[in-house]
Amino acid sequence: MSVTAALGFEAAGVAAGLRKSGGPDVALVVNRGPLTSAAAVFTSNRAKANPILWSEQVIRDGVVGAIVLNSGGANCFTGAQGFQTVHATAESVAAELGVSSGDVLVCSTGLIGEQLDRDALLAGVAAAAASLNADGGVDAANAILTTDTVAKLSVADRGGWKIGGMAKGAGMLAPALATMLVVLTTDADLASHELDAALRQAVASTFNRLDSDGCTSTNDQVTLLASGASGIGPDVEDFTAALTEVCADLARQLMADAEGASHEITITVRGAASESDAEEVGRSIARSNLFKAAVFGNDPNWGRVLAAIGTTSAQFDPYRVDVSMNGIRVCHAGEPDAPRENVNLSPRHLALDIDLAAGSSSATILTNDLTHAYVHENSAYSS
Amino acid sequence: MSVTAALGFEAAGVAAGLRKSGGPDVALVVNRGPLTSAAAVFTSNRAKANPILWSEQVIRDGVVGAIVLNSGGANCFTGAQGFQTVHATAESVAAELGVSSGDVLVCSTGLIGEQLDRDALLAGVAAAAASLNADGGVDAANAILTTDTVAKLSVADRGGWKIGGMAKGAGMLAPALATMLVVLTTDADLASHELDAALRQAVASTFNRLDSDGCTSTNDQVTLLASGASGIGPDVEDFTAALTEVCADLARQLMADAEGASHEITITVRGAASESDAEEVGRSIARSNLFKAAVFGNDPNWGRVLAAIGTTSAQFDPYRVDVSMNGIRVCHAGEPDAPRENVNLSPRHLALDIDLAAGSSSATILTNDLTHAYVHENSAYSS
Repeated sequence: MSVTAALGFEAAGVAAGLRKSGGPDVALVVNRGPLTSAAAVFTSNRAKANPILWSEQVIRDGVVGAIVLNSGGANCFTGAQGFQTVHATAESVAAELGVSSGDVLVCSTGLIGEQLDRDALLAGVAAAAASLNADGGVDAANAILTTDTVAKLSVADRGGWKIGGMAKGAGMLAPALATMLVVLTTDADLASHELDAALRQAVASTFNRLDSDGCTSTNDQVTLLASGASGIGPDVEDFTAALTEVCADLARQLMADAEGASHEITITVRGAASESDAEEVGRSIARSNLFKAAVFGNDPNWGRVLAAIGTTSAQFDPYRVDVSMNGIRVCHAGEPDAPRENVNLSPRHLALDIDLAAGSSSATILTNDLTHAYVHENSAYSS
Repeated sequence: MSVTAALGFEAAGVAAGLRKSGGPDVALVVNRGPLTSAAAVFTSNRAKANPILWSEQVIRDGVVGAIVLNSGGANCFTGAQGFQTVHATAESVAAELGVSSGDVLVCSTGLIGEQLDRDALLAGVAAAAASLNADGGVDAANAILTTDTVAKLSVADRGGWKIGGMAKGAGMLAPALATMLVVLTTDADLASHELDAALRQAVASTFNRLDSDGCTSTNDQVTLLASGASGIGPDVEDFTAALTEVCADLARQLMADAEGASHEITITVRGAASESDAEEVGRSIARSNLFKAAVFGNDPNWGRVLAAIGTTSAQFDPYRVDVSMNGIRVCHAGEPDAPRENVNLSPRHLALDIDLAAGSSSATILTNDLTHAYVHENSAYSS
């Protein structure tokens, strides 16, 4: 059900010919109200794609009537012509729906530095508008996929109000398209500043802790739209918990569909002096090509874990650190513990646990291994 | 001639059985004086190998009589037993040469988290001491290699005084062993504080700008020994220039012998507001798996260059940046310029030039592409 699980939303997904491989490539999600409050978070990359530049302006007043998304081109570093394509797209959606173009968010994903086919995109918008329906969530979710193998959908039903969501593309899957696009919808009755606070909190512990290859897309956008159609205004804390649940579920699905990867790795850092220390340590390991290539080779090379931790500014004593893999403690207090041969890395999931013995904070980072398929997909993509 | 090019030095390299693959694995370099002044720089990794912990103490007084190096094991995260192995090694060198063990530097490279065979190592030290000679530089350089394919040697002869050096291992070559070990010798008559200043300056613009995979070894060490045997005390500025020349030559050799790599990439960043901005931008590109996988696939994907720059804190406007590859300007002022098809990436060397249009500073970073061979070597190494 995805983005149409909550009352008040319609969606569609169509093929506009933007992707060379064919298939659906334009998605439209419309909020029929009565509320049109919204919040969004954007990539931290300072080189921002044209749809990001546009959407950052649209979200300012917290009012969004519709969001249009395309695959087949990132519309990034495409200059004035590219920005005009975004503007024309929003105008086209606005005209079809009878809303203001200033209330239309735009998202794109694909190759950087090439112009989108504007005519094809606008024709796609018209086709999507014509096929909008209250069961269109799955179609929309399919139209934002690139080399993802399955659509990512999630719903939290709190009996009375719901949150639904769709997501595409992360890291190893095909990092050329690593852009993470997420649309979340709810029929809860909440104002945009409440949505904004809930969204930032939910994203911080979910999507922001999914780190497949350390590269940050120019096009990332996570959007939350509220219709208020349930007539229920839930407690913001309850809403945030439900939203976090949906975001965590979508993040796990993104990790699980990383085709280039042969292992999913959950890095749990405990005993940290602060949560930011724990996150920094987890991320340093998630970004170590050496460690991730070792996991690909089913090699429990814990020395590479400690070498990665040593590059951080986190509080720790290298000679108090414990490292466990799939429950086998291979390093205790900075020295070899159980023989590395005891660790079985043949399952797809690896649970890597680090105890820094420096405090009581913790954080979990999700990542993948570094594989031949990653190199292949990312060397072959634009050709 | 390597480390024995300068007067006053003897060296040797022997096979002690530490490497499973066989071959020479223990090197010894001795300074016969009359001076025994020295300087060294160490890894910035906070998880330091036992030989680093030892050598940091030895260098404090600026006096070094000998340096012993082994491949076949990093002696890192090996606890008290590992530290005792370093101590015993230095004691053994001291006894053989009649110097103080507190004047003996120790370097190791290999797998982290496994004990060295102490008896084999001490037998190697005795054998190396017995075969010391004034032409032993090449033997020593061969004994520190791991999966390097050739020894890295360099000499600067200033007519009257010389600097010689040897180096091993960097990044893609086999990053499990990515430890960079460098020994530089000179017969110039300089005090340890002069050597220290010259070494730090030379390393900053050479070895510290070689960034193959963003991973920092627990065992890196660059050492400079001066015998004063030429009787000449050169101007420190002249000496620093010669030392920088030798370091740059060795850094280039390290990049060129990166077996896992199919391209050597010279990233030159110009027009930066500061040298540190230029270095940060260059390093962000050198650490982008996406860009480096694209280069492997002969794909001039300049969008990935801009996406990497966008993650830095450097002063720049994305819409003023120029990007050229092998002389073809593919991006001008943040928009597509020459067609990417015009770029020929089939040669092994790629010159990537970035103009940030934000100032007049520049920096050059050396790196390699991300290849199947890199993944293979690093997934297969410890098994």
